[in-house]
Amino acid sequence: MTDQYDAWGALARLRKAGPLVHCITNYVAMDVTANTLLAIGASPAMVHANEEVEDFVSISSALVVNIGTLSPAWVQAMGRAADRAVARGTPWVLDPVGVGATDYRTRTARDLAGRKPSVVRGNASEILSLAGEVGGSKGVDSTRGAEEAAGVARELARGLGCVVAVTGAVDYVTDGRLTLAVEHGHPMMTRVTALGCALTGVTGAFLAVEPEPLLAAAYALALFGLAGEMAASGAIGPGTLRVRLIDALHVLDTIPRTELRIREV
Amino acid sequence: MTDQYDAWGALARLRKAGPLVHCITNYVAMDVTANTLLAIGASPAMVHANEEVEDFVSISSALVVNIGTLSPAWVQAMGRAADRAVARGTPWVLDPVGVGATDYRTRTARDLAGRKPSVVRGNASEILSLAGEVGGSKGVDSTRGAEEAAGVARELARGLGCVVAVTGAVDYVTDGRLTLAVEHGHPMMTRVTALGCALTGVTGAFLAVEPEPLLAAAYALALFGLAGEMAASGAIGPGTLRVRLIDALHVLDTIPRTELRIREV
Amino acid sequence: MTDQYDAWGALARLRKAGPLVHCITNYVAMDVTANTLLAIGASPAMVHANEEVEDFVSISSALVVNIGTLSPAWVQAMGRAADRAVARGTPWVLDPVGVGATDYRTRTARDLAGRKPSVVRGNASEILSLAGEVGGSKGVDSTRGAEEAAGVARELARGLGCVVAVTGAVDYVTDGRLTLAVEHGHPMMTRVTALGCALTGVTGAFLAVEPEPLLAAAYALALFGLAGEMAASGAIGPGTLRVRLIDALHVLDTIPRTELRIREV
Repeated sequence: MTDQYDAWGALARLRKAGPLVHCITNYVAMDVTANTLLAIGASPAMVHANEEVEDFVSISSALVVNIGTLSPAWVQAMGRAADRAVARGTPWVLDPVGVGATDYRTRTARDLAGRKPSVVRGNASEILSLAGEVGGSKGVDSTRGAEEAAGVARELARGLGCVVAVTGAVDYVTDGRLTLAVEHGHPMMTRVTALGCALTGVTGAFLAVEPEPLLAAAYALALFGLAGEMAASGAIGPGTLRVRLIDALHVLDTIPRTELRIREV
Repeated sequence: MTDQYDAWGALARLRKAGPLVHCITNYVAMDVTANTLLAIGASPAMVHANEEVEDFVSISSALVVNIGTLSPAWVQAMGRAADRAVARGTPWVLDPVGVGATDYRTRTARDLAGRKPSVVRGNASEILSLAGEVGGSKGVDSTRGAEEAAGVARELARGLGCVVAVTGAVDYVTDGRLTLAVEHGHPMMTRVTALGCALTGVTGAFLAVEPEPLLAAAYALALFGLAGEMAASGAIGPGTLRVRLIDALHVLDTIPRTELRIREV
Repeated sequence: MTDQYDAWGALARLRKAGPLVHCITNYVAMDVTANTLLAIGASPAMVHANEEVEDFVSISSALVVNIGTLSPAWVQAMGRAADRAVARGTPWVLDPVGVGATDYRTRTARDLAGRKPSVVRGNASEILSLAGEVGGSKGVDSTRGAEEAAGVARELARGLGCVVAVTGAVDYVTDGRLTLAVEHGHPMMTRVTALGCALTGVTGAFLAVEPEPLLAAAYALALFGLAGEMAASGAIGPGTLRVRLIDALHVLDTIPRTELRIREV
């Protein structure tokens, strides 16, 4: 079945296109997101001012919105940028960091989720909270398994009319009809800050070159996870893991193309 | 005397609890603070909006406030978060970065220091400035020895009714009555940005698991300093030091428990 | 001719002085800029609030202004800080990140460029956009060669009455009369985020110890580029490159002093 999931072909297109990915992301994630996007072959730009987000979306190939460190002016800019992206047919991905932890965060995430993102990516707690389930959100960490959330994700995807990706030990990506499981990654990745946010950034980069959001998200998850496995092998701790992850993404198109663990469930 | 300073036991509790540490910190420090907290075993979250800081403090086990890159909206949120923490009995730690460098910074640091922090951590210049001494503050670097500031710290601790930690070649922690000296760390740590801020974050994590603020601060200083020594051994420069420090914090509970240099003075 | 370009002597002065460099830079660049400045021997501080930027410029040896992630309050603070720097005779350097990508960005960059910076540093697209040429700006990446922009830079330097540095495979620095070419660096440096911003920071540090802005900029370009070459040698990818670059800047005064490729063109 893997033949139909041509992540390596999408990566080659990404490398060739070097798409400009407009990110409105959180302060913690900016550095690692930008470095991750550069390493995978994209061209990241962090632009958040209300005075220019619409102009900037208009020259970008994809938009990434992440609410990790939100505040009123940024929330306004996120909405504007999302609306402009939709109006232009530019794909955009939402990372509802910490939704469920505070009312402000939940209201903001739900408002943005209603603005027709191409993909929503979160951990199990976040997807459950976004769907209105009583999640066990302890801030930004997942406390319920991704598998448990896969069913909720399917309904959420149908409700929002977009793709929903739930990440965890196994990742699930669904458009409400078809659900793919992606089995890549390493537990030590959860000990490096903002790798989930960086993955959302990489999802934006794949959305720029793969017209089917379900596949774009699955490819991002699989290749980012594979790079994480490469990085974890031999890493002493999360310090070296992060450095090696950036290196691994950089060399991803030079290694033998292994078969990726993407399967329909 | 070391038997009474059970830093290793506190570390084991920290690892088990994985406390949620709410950080309102500066833009430079966010990445390394989050990675440091993850490596030591805590769960960091950076949340600064006035619309949600009180809600977020309410679900957190400790609060970290750092004024490194302050602005009016953030200062307001810091005050709100601190007040909520005190009202809930949640421990909080203040890092008065650069106090003394500008009037705005000094006013802000003093206002926050008056809101009953559990611990204030700064370098000698910062502690002297906070206490109203004419410090030789050159921005954010210490220009006077920590030892010199230890006496001032004792008075400041009595005045504020909290623990004050002065960091330098030797660190001093005092509650105004008892003063502990901690002798760990490496000079190259001063060439990596925001490690003092990260240490303040780690202090927050220990406050979540050790009810005595004097001990929590001393344990954070000792173990963070020990990890710094491990990192500096074999580091070419501050680039590798930072990576190795994160790794060292991660493996801290797997190494032989050495006796830590904490002593009463 | 190299004898007249005493970059190593300037580095020795920088190490000795440890100048306080006030940076108003973008969120992505803060961490790597601060670490780069510490590694080269300066003392960085990130301060952006309108309430304190003028006070902080007054105690600093150089000012760095970078518009990467601009917003109204920050733009106002940048103008204030620049004006205060000029009034005090403190050198300042402007990095017009992404000028040309949006109207807001272009207006802001041109306004700041008119406030008598000592040096403006950008890639070819940025310098062309700043000069009013129709650049091919795709956000923050250069799409036209630095060489092509060198002529425009000369005119811009004359118009602004300052030094203009255009960076690319070969860097050009000009005061409108004399133009220097600097041939150092490595292509992989473009895959690490914010290294251009960090270089602008290092230019600020050299402005603090070298009274001639043309030379200060050339020295910063040459030594930063040399450190990049050292870092790239043996680097697997941009992850290790960044770590090794910080290390290389740190050890720069301990290596044999090679002749630097700075020449008049």
